[in-house]
Amino acid sequence: MDTQVVTSPTTDKTNGVDVNQILGVIGDIEENAEIAKFQFRASNRWIDGGLNRSTIKEFYAVGREDDTRTEPFMLNADEPQFLAGQDSAANPVEYVLHALAGCLTTTLVYHAAVRDIQIGAVESELEGDLDIRGLLGLSEDVRKGYQHVRVKMRVQSDETADALKELAMFSPVYDIVSNSLPVELVIETY
Amino acid sequence: MDTQVVTSPTTDKTNGVDVNQILGVIGDIEENAEIAKFQFRASNRWIDGGLNRSTIKEFYAVGREDDTRTEPFMLNADEPQFLAGQDSAANPVEYVLHALAGCLTTTLVYHAAVRDIQIGAVESELEGDLDIRGLLGLSEDVRKGYQHVRVKMRVQSDETADALKELAMFSPVYDIVSNSLPVELVIETY
Repeated sequence: MDTQVVTSPTTDKTNGVDVNQILGVIGDIEENAEIAKFQFRASNRWIDGGLNRSTIKEFYAVGREDDTRTEPFMLNADEPQFLAGQDSAANPVEYVLHALAGCLTTTLVYHAAVRDIQIGAVESELEGDLDIRGLLGLSEDVRKGYQHVRVKMRVQSDETADALKELAMFSPVYDIVSNSLPVELVIETY
Repeated sequence: MDTQVVTSPTTDKTNGVDVNQILGVIGDIEENAEIAKFQFRASNRWIDGGLNRSTIKEFYAVGREDDTRTEPFMLNADEPQFLAGQDSAANPVEYVLHALAGCLTTTLVYHAAVRDIQIGAVESELEGDLDIRGLLGLSEDVRKGYQHVRVKMRVQSDETADALKELAMFSPVYDIVSNSLPVELVIETY
C-alpha cells in the first residue's frame, strides 16, 4: 500500500466518497424499492446553425423532487469548422465520450469505496469511430452513430484490473451506450 | 411562410448553416468514401469523489488530423448531493441527455438546411428514467442505464412533424443511445 495516494481528507471518506451516505441510500432502497426510481431531465434550445444550449437542473430522486440544486447547469454544443460550425463547444458525439468517461470513472471509484478498495488515480482515453455517411444519409449500410468505442483506463490501485473492470461495468452510461434503449421521440410543429 | 423567423444573417446560409460547405463535404465523400471515416476522442482524469474532468480537443476528420481547434474543451462531471457528490457539474447521465438533445437538434437543422426547409426555432424537453438498483448492484433484473428516454421537440417550421422527425432521426447520438454499440473497455493498474 506504500504507493497509494489517498485523496480523501477525512477518515470517514474512502476515495473522497462518503461511504456511510451511500450505504444509507442502499439501506433505504432495500426497505422500499420505489425510491430507487430516479428521473433526470434536460431542456435544450437551438441558437443558430450548429449551436444549441441545454439547461439542466430539476431531477427526481430518492422519492422526491430535488431541492438541493439551486442553479442550473448550462451546456452548449456546437460543431467543428469543417462541419460548418463555429467550434465554440464540444459536439454532441464528443459529449457522449465525456459522459461515458465520467460515468465509468465515478462508478469505479464509488463501488471501490463501498468495498474499501483505495483508488489513487484514474485516467482514461476514449476514441469513437464514426463514418459520417450514415449521418449524411449517403449509405443505408452505414450506421449513424459510432461504430466502435474504445476506452483505456489506467487506475492506481492494489486491486486487480479484472476486479476493477467488474466494478466499472456497473456504469449506467456504459449500459446506455453498449445496449439498446427505447427512445421515444415526439415532434410538434407550430 | 409569414411566421418564419430566419436566423441566418446572410443569404448563403439556411438555418445558420453554410449549405454549400456541407454540400462540398458530401461531394468529397461521394468521390472518396474513405474520408467519411471520422474519429472523435476524449481524455478524462478523476479529481476526487464524484468529480472528474474531460479534455476534448483532437479529432480526425475528412482524411486528416484536425488543426483548426486550437484550445481544448474542459468538461467536468460531478454527482448531486444525495449521491455524495458536490453537485458542481451535471452528472454523466445528464450529459447523455444533453448530447442527445444537441444531436437531434443539429441533425434536424442541418438536414432541413440542405433541403431548403427553413426552421425558425427548436426547443426540446428530455426525461430519462433510471432505477438505481442496477447501478448499485441491488438487482440483476434492473438494467444499469436509463430504462426509457422521452424527447419532446417543438419546431417552428412549415414542414410536417413527420418529415422533420425523419430528418432528426439521422442523429448519431439518437442511434448511439437507441441501438447497441460495441464498447471495448481495457483497464490497466499500476
